[in-house]
Amino acid sequence: MNINAPVPVGVLGASGYVGQELLRLLAGHPGASVAFATAESAAGEVVEGQRLVKTDDAPLERAEMVFSCLPHGISSRYVRAARAVGCRTVDLSADFRLSAEAVYGLTEVARSRVAGAEFVANPGCYPTAALLALIPLAQRGFIDTTREVVIDAASGVTGAGRTLKREYLFGEVAEDYRAYAAGNTHRHIPEVRATLARESGFSGDLVFTPHLLPLRRGILETIHVPLTRPLDQAAAESIYDGAYAGEPCIQIARGKLPSLRDVVYRNRVALGVVPVADVQRPRVTVIAAIDNLVKGAAGQAVQNMNVMLGIPETTGLLC
Amino acid sequence: MNINAPVPVGVLGASGYVGQELLRLLAGHPGASVAFATAESAAGEVVEGQRLVKTDDAPLERAEMVFSCLPHGISSRYVRAARAVGCRTVDLSADFRLSAEAVYGLTEVARSRVAGAEFVANPGCYPTAALLALIPLAQRGFIDTTREVVIDAASGVTGAGRTLKREYLFGEVAEDYRAYAAGNTHRHIPEVRATLARESGFSGDLVFTPHLLPLRRGILETIHVPLTRPLDQAAAESIYDGAYAGEPCIQIARGKLPSLRDVVYRNRVALGVVPVADVQRPRVTVIAAIDNLVKGAAGQAVQNMNVMLGIPETTGLLC
Amino acid sequence: MNINAPVPVGVLGASGYVGQELLRLLAGHPGASVAFATAESAAGEVVEGQRLVKTDDAPLERAEMVFSCLPHGISSRYVRAARAVGCRTVDLSADFRLSAEAVYGLTEVARSRVAGAEFVANPGCYPTAALLALIPLAQRGFIDTTREVVIDAASGVTGAGRTLKREYLFGEVAEDYRAYAAGNTHRHIPEVRATLARESGFSGDLVFTPHLLPLRRGILETIHVPLTRPLDQAAAESIYDGAYAGEPCIQIARGKLPSLRDVVYRNRVALGVVPVADVQRPRVTVIAAIDNLVKGAAGQAVQNMNVMLGIPETTGLLC
Amino acid sequence: MNINAPVPVGVLGASGYVGQELLRLLAGHPGASVAFATAESAAGEVVEGQRLVKTDDAPLERAEMVFSCLPHGISSRYVRAARAVGCRTVDLSADFRLSAEAVYGLTEVARSRVAGAEFVANPGCYPTAALLALIPLAQRGFIDTTREVVIDAASGVTGAGRTLKREYLFGEVAEDYRAYAAGNTHRHIPEVRATLARESGFSGDLVFTPHLLPLRRGILETIHVPLTRPLDQAAAESIYDGAYAGEPCIQIARGKLPSLRDVVYRNRVALGVVPVADVQRPRVTVIAAIDNLVKGAAGQAVQNMNVMLGIPETTGLLC
Repeated sequence: MNINAPVPVGVLGASGYVGQELLRLLAGHPGASVAFATAESAAGEVVEGQRLVKTDDAPLERAEMVFSCLPHGISSRYVRAARAVGCRTVDLSADFRLSAEAVYGLTEVARSRVAGAEFVANPGCYPTAALLALIPLAQRGFIDTTREVVIDAASGVTGAGRTLKREYLFGEVAEDYRAYAAGNTHRHIPEVRATLARESGFSGDLVFTPHLLPLRRGILETIHVPLTRPLDQAAAESIYDGAYAGEPCIQIARGKLPSLRDVVYRNRVALGVVPVADVQRPRVTVIAAIDNLVKGAAGQAVQNMNVMLGIPETTGLLC
Repeated sequence: MNINAPVPVGVLGASGYVGQELLRLLAGHPGASVAFATAESAAGEVVEGQRLVKTDDAPLERAEMVFSCLPHGISSRYVRAARAVGCRTVDLSADFRLSAEAVYGLTEVARSRVAGAEFVANPGCYPTAALLALIPLAQRGFIDTTREVVIDAASGVTGAGRTLKREYLFGEVAEDYRAYAAGNTHRHIPEVRATLARESGFSGDLVFTPHLLPLRRGILETIHVPLTRPLDQAAAESIYDGAYAGEPCIQIARGKLPSLRDVVYRNRVALGVVPVADVQRPRVTVIAAIDNLVKGAAGQAVQNMNVMLGIPETTGLLC
Repeated sequence: MNINAPVPVGVLGASGYVGQELLRLLAGHPGASVAFATAESAAGEVVEGQRLVKTDDAPLERAEMVFSCLPHGISSRYVRAARAVGCRTVDLSADFRLSAEAVYGLTEVARSRVAGAEFVANPGCYPTAALLALIPLAQRGFIDTTREVVIDAASGVTGAGRTLKREYLFGEVAEDYRAYAAGNTHRHIPEVRATLARESGFSGDLVFTPHLLPLRRGILETIHVPLTRPLDQAAAESIYDGAYAGEPCIQIARGKLPSLRDVVYRNRVALGVVPVADVQRPRVTVIAAIDNLVKGAAGQAVQNMNVMLGIPETTGLLC
Repeated sequence: MNINAPVPVGVLGASGYVGQELLRLLAGHPGASVAFATAESAAGEVVEGQRLVKTDDAPLERAEMVFSCLPHGISSRYVRAARAVGCRTVDLSADFRLSAEAVYGLTEVARSRVAGAEFVANPGCYPTAALLALIPLAQRGFIDTTREVVIDAASGVTGAGRTLKREYLFGEVAEDYRAYAAGNTHRHIPEVRATLARESGFSGDLVFTPHLLPLRRGILETIHVPLTRPLDQAAAESIYDGAYAGEPCIQIARGKLPSLRDVVYRNRVALGVVPVADVQRPRVTVIAAIDNLVKGAAGQAVQNMNVMLGIPETTGLLC
């Protein structure tokens, strides 16, 4: 076997924003070659040099690794078909994120499990940022569970996919900013809760409110964490430094807070932490930024593939 | 005296974004005529048909009403000069907001005091939205002061003024989003605290984190309020309905959350409220939206002028 | 008859961007009161305090003046119904712009005809800017018809209406810029040609290429005009000064070129002209800017209504 | 000598937008390692893992290849110093673009000259797009020089650099669009003229008008070309197909016109061509799109470096 031969990969659902981004990343990946890419209404179109075929016609047998960027609810059927013919699979939909069938692929937290996995459920975009911000504090018992963790998250519009709805028309979103799914009704909350509980035993209350930014890309989460004991600036940063020492895709901001500009078009999580002044009980505010299409979706999927294949984790990725 | 003669008004500091907006509003105001408008480096330029004169050369005696849009710290001296020659004055800077010399002009809350005032300190942009959202709950004893009120506020860039700093270059702000002054360090916090205490006796902890939107105009605040007792959707809305019945510049959103599009280029506060599900102790999330240049600055200044002059409160304003 | 009673007006098609803008302008118009406003799928919604009724249920008899913001092809039928019951009518669709049935309402050029009209066809957005830029030069014989007039026009996305098409999704338009309908295929070209011919006798070749800006509002046209004889800066400006002396809605830029910021949310055409250096034969470049929703649609419609009603032309309009 | 050892490169002027982009590209380039990167006021800051040193302290002797992203007028001195110590050099400033000292590095046109060069002047952003669009037509004698070629170009704001000027503040540029340097006064025009003359003998008149887009990245040029003889759609496209067959960084659009989305974050020129209908004499409109920071600057510089080093031309570049 030629150790250097690129691995043939297939992409199910390549016409949406995540699928397009995945093809863009794979086009520059020296260890993978795209065997097929699929779509429904966009079948026949060419994306990154790949002519899209109907998803039902996907030649699964030509791929060793399959990515599914199909919509939630639809993905599971095709993922099972890929698994049935022996393809290693990364599912970017939500279909298996709360299931024991797949390894939950938050790479920095689950690297060893991903390494041996045949089937990875790629995390949601909001959960990726929230979890990497909260797990270090939760694991060390710093979060005061008698008060709520409040997460205000703001996302670029590609996070909503390419669905044709009036509310996502340019004329509706541009020069606007708004909250949606307020009151703890967003479907990503159970994924955050379940993962926090599994990784740290945390079971406190969360209040999660997403917002829609007039931007294509990027998620910034402002995470308000009540503490069991005070942390000054240096101590707070040292927790993250310790938790993520040597991580190529995590950048701890110093002297400034992270912003979307630090992360767009990169497979990077930027984290910053600040103690809160003038309150009676201790608190920090943590800022987490990612590109929703990269570390929040296609980039983390490639990162997981690299781990699964045993090649350098950042191959083909700008971190 | 001709009861219909427009009142001569002067604008100190008319070259910044707030001053320009004030001149725009005054240009369409049937009860006011601009007697002079001033600037420093922009003296000589023409804005809305007014040739700007040096602020030190302002012919204060020609105006009955003076607005100051000068920078914080500089405004007080010129405002005192205007007061000394008998001009009724609205100061849009922060210089007198915490002072007993001026009436704090949050119009809906302080209307009767503004009506008789000679000197009004116009509220800050962030405080206007936060206070109109919180006062009804605070006055009715709904806020649980054993937990913190968390306010995440996002503002368009004109809120930072027209200062020449690298961080406000288009290339730095566009396609970006970021928090700033995190950790309770923003200078508007004492204004919110002092006004809440005065109007409602509230003395609980606040956590206020502003963010910079890649937009010119608009502020949206997501305000997380811990409650002393539960409020369902209808009960929460009825508090705001009762508090602001008949207010022409306050719109209570129903069936949707307010967004910037509801308020830009209007002298309007849009408010929405949602109970938070899946938490052990009661909470609501309140959304407040304003145009930082209108209800957050120049529009509220005109609204205050109208009240001071005893003319219909929304004259010259689109609410 | 009470000379001050507001005129009852009806708006057909009030849920699109132009219709919404028209209701916004009418809300601040002291001489008009909205008798009804209509929609199709949005019937039942409230816009600017008006509950929208089905267009087929429009109580035309309650209005003295009717505006139609219905789509091209659909408008004509409803406009004829309004005319049949005696309503004075301004049609904002393209249906009658090339017809002798209606007066073509380019206000500054056709003021006297509009004044006596019962039925006005409101000009298209691109033609409004192009015609007001070209007519002064064409009428004075300055355009060299042996060379082509080249017009590159860039428009905000609301110009495309609120139609649900993938190409107008935020994710497709944001952070992008593109030409469309290149090669002289845009449907506004005959309107420009016919009006130029009627007003000035011009019959030369035009090349018109529209572009889509990642903005909600505004049209800027860069108009390249080959000249029969040279014009220096002063002479070029004096042509526009002379043509538009005293016009409240036309601003001739001096010392700078007009930009969208000069015109958004205003019923204004900003014009600038520059001679072209380093070419063998004389040319000027003319820049024309308007807000497509205001002077390019709803604002010009109100301006025309004002002229038709004999009230001051800029009533309810910020120019 | 190890044939695979990365070439040590130095970057002069790495704190501006072009310099930052160059460091981003070099970070992902397998054949280059950054030996140093310099700045003035930003010395001491870290960009892409490189701590910036003062330009005067640049350790030129550590680099085999030097890029200069210094400002026009300043670059030449430092470039000469780099050349004096034997560094191969790519100057991204305008200082040598019209000089015989350096090879003008429009890669697709000058590949063989670049291959042997020690010193390359990297083309300007606007000229790169204009020249690649015009040279194929000019070389084949299709351009009618009795009429003017009209170029309307629109650029994102990073094209203006990171200079601190009021006109580049977010509040001035956002939600705006404007022409600048109208009347053939832009400093890139001589570069276009000289290169067209050298490569094709073309000596006709050009009218070039740049515009400022409310975007960070991207240039789109709409190029109006009068023809000596008619070209239909297929014939026009076949000229570009023939001229650029096999070019990895040039994409000829078919069935749609190119837009910025096709080129941002890529080292690609997207070209489209359309015949103009309804005019008496033959014309085509050519659309050319590039990312001003990539193919218009840092990407083309890397492409030139690759050619100079004899490694695959697109190494480290996404085309």
